[in-house]
Amino acid sequence: MATVSRRSEMTKATSSITIPVLLLGCGGVGRHLLHHIVACRDLHSKMGLVLRVVGVSDSRSLLLVDDVATGGFEDALLTEIFRLKSSSGRCQLVKGAEVTTNIIKVAGLLGKLTGLSVVDCTASPETVHMLTKVIDFGCCIILANKKPLTCTIEDYDSLISNIRRIRFESTVGAGLPIIASITRVLGSGDPIYRIIGSLSGTLGYVMSEIEDGKLLSEVVLAAKSLGYTEPDPRDDLSGLDVARKALILARLLGWRIDMDDIQVESLYPKELGPNSMSTEDFLRTGILSLDRGIQERANAASSRSKVLRYVCVIEGSRCQVGLQELPKDSPLGRLRGSDNVVEIYSRCYNKSPMVIQGAGAGNDTTAAGVLADIVDLQDLFH
Amino acid sequence: MATVSRRSEMTKATSSITIPVLLLGCGGVGRHLLHHIVACRDLHSKMGLVLRVVGVSDSRSLLLVDDVATGGFEDALLTEIFRLKSSSGRCQLVKGAEVTTNIIKVAGLLGKLTGLSVVDCTASPETVHMLTKVIDFGCCIILANKKPLTCTIEDYDSLISNIRRIRFESTVGAGLPIIASITRVLGSGDPIYRIIGSLSGTLGYVMSEIEDGKLLSEVVLAAKSLGYTEPDPRDDLSGLDVARKALILARLLGWRIDMDDIQVESLYPKELGPNSMSTEDFLRTGILSLDRGIQERANAASSRSKVLRYVCVIEGSRCQVGLQELPKDSPLGRLRGSDNVVEIYSRCYNKSPMVIQGAGAGNDTTAAGVLADIVDLQDLFH
Repeated sequence: MATVSRRSEMTKATSSITIPVLLLGCGGVGRHLLHHIVACRDLHSKMGLVLRVVGVSDSRSLLLVDDVATGGFEDALLTEIFRLKSSSGRCQLVKGAEVTTNIIKVAGLLGKLTGLSVVDCTASPETVHMLTKVIDFGCCIILANKKPLTCTIEDYDSLISNIRRIRFESTVGAGLPIIASITRVLGSGDPIYRIIGSLSGTLGYVMSEIEDGKLLSEVVLAAKSLGYTEPDPRDDLSGLDVARKALILARLLGWRIDMDDIQVESLYPKELGPNSMSTEDFLRTGILSLDRGIQERANAASSRSKVLRYVCVIEGSRCQVGLQELPKDSPLGRLRGSDNVVEIYSRCYNKSPMVIQGAGAGNDTTAAGVLADIVDLQDLFH
Repeated sequence: MATVSRRSEMTKATSSITIPVLLLGCGGVGRHLLHHIVACRDLHSKMGLVLRVVGVSDSRSLLLVDDVATGGFEDALLTEIFRLKSSSGRCQLVKGAEVTTNIIKVAGLLGKLTGLSVVDCTASPETVHMLTKVIDFGCCIILANKKPLTCTIEDYDSLISNIRRIRFESTVGAGLPIIASITRVLGSGDPIYRIIGSLSGTLGYVMSEIEDGKLLSEVVLAAKSLGYTEPDPRDDLSGLDVARKALILARLLGWRIDMDDIQVESLYPKELGPNSMSTEDFLRTGILSLDRGIQERANAASSRSKVLRYVCVIEGSRCQVGLQELPKDSPLGRLRGSDNVVEIYSRCYNKSPMVIQGAGAGNDTTAAGVLADIVDLQDLFH
């Protein structure tokens, strides 16, 4: 077993650092993360780093190593974690209401003793208070879940009161280094005055297909059949998920705003929404009524040598999510397919922005971003 | 004065962290860095961070705060630093051969006591052994200087033996988060199999102007008159500076290679080189003889719907720097002006690469990248 090291002075030689990890959420991202952690054992060992999974939970159960302070999982046990089963007396399974209580108990124990990284790969709006307690115990938290960052500004303030112990790269653009890059720019005193980005792979794809003359309904139905959209594509078309990402970026810039302060343009009107119409009806008839309007806007943009993109804009006092006409030869205008792109304008990146582009979704990529965040926290575990 | 905090347990509340900084090199980047440090005092204070400049050196002199262990500069004293003058008994000025000895002495003292960040903003190939000693004392080092990273692989290995204590973002692409992003991708176990980048603003500009039908000589002379090239533009056209950046990236990927292992295509032949011809002769007559060759290559590329770019390619067992024909609709093909662009291909960024683009030169931007590196080291100073 690797030892938990503790740095007593700056000159101490590099020794192995152990980061105990407690994973919340066992969906696509959580499972990929566990796979990555196992696959990276040798790599991390060469870096003097040991990630030790001490527990995994889903919404109903928590599987813990019996003695979380000293024990560790072998690879074989990870197989059991995937099934959330108690294995041969070395793990304990907690269910129901006791899950949260036990997570806080483990955080209280390990936070003081060795430090703990609690990773939120759920999609739950319920974890924020637990995470705030966990960070107060001296633990680190890593989020793939956007919800704890898009809560009320008061809860947000409590959560991020110790900003060095929290990482959330994968909440915007999956593994793309958007948060990390903005954090670097801000920390260097280079003020960011404008962020504009295409932060939905689905809407990016839809808009570039419409640019090629296809109909919205045609593109959305094709994308849905390929599994590129949410089960109800209105969850993409509403822009709400982009708005959450915009809020995360705006708050990162220091804006004290809530979801309600963001102007969000939905691509469908209320009367075609989930409260008025089933998913099936929307896909069969409702969506067809949207084709003409958006095609006209795309054509109008094209007649001005521009293209229509679904973007978030954070600038001045405006945090806005919706369709924009953009120059064809800008990074956003040139965007094809489902890549995410963010343009960041600051004193140093003025005439020409800092641009970060690439795949902004997918379980593998998102989990890789989470793992990079955990690795980035290692200096706190000296 | 801010206090130097030392974290004794994970639960300790956030307190102010002080990072003592010793700056080597007072040219454009070094001076901008000092300005940024002063300008960011309030910002950093809000982040619980104090950067305290304890000394500044150029090649001949070192100006130190008298009692480096406890003293600190006020803003007014920074004015004196710029002039490298001793100021009213609160600073000491060391000259000549004693500069290096004194830097090592300060590092030995502060490395154990409070930690120290030594920032290399020189362009000297001579600092590497001093920096290796400095890091052995438990100090951190931050490089804008490429040379310590492009030395022999043996010296490189010694220098980076404690990789958590060294940052060098500004050696490639100035403030662009290229090194930080590659480090994140690698740490998450996502293997990078190809990097291709345009890492010279000058050559990027030259090649996009040639694409528009201009002559090489015309573009270079215009760029020189605007101060966009080195005093002798052959320092850009040789590709050597790009090769240094390529070596830094290849070594970051774990390649154990030296400068000699990189295939470098110079844009001028040996007989037009500095050993055969003065700068004036090159600019008056020599460069004209290059126009036709490069124009023919640009036209040939265009006839295949491609564009000619001066890039570094790191892939397979090849680390190569020179002209390449690239698809017009790739991030590199679309590049205009003097921006740097890097495309990173890995398991997660496969069909479509991770792309980082923006201004890759300039004293302000480079210094901002150095400052972001210093801020990034703060967890080591807990």
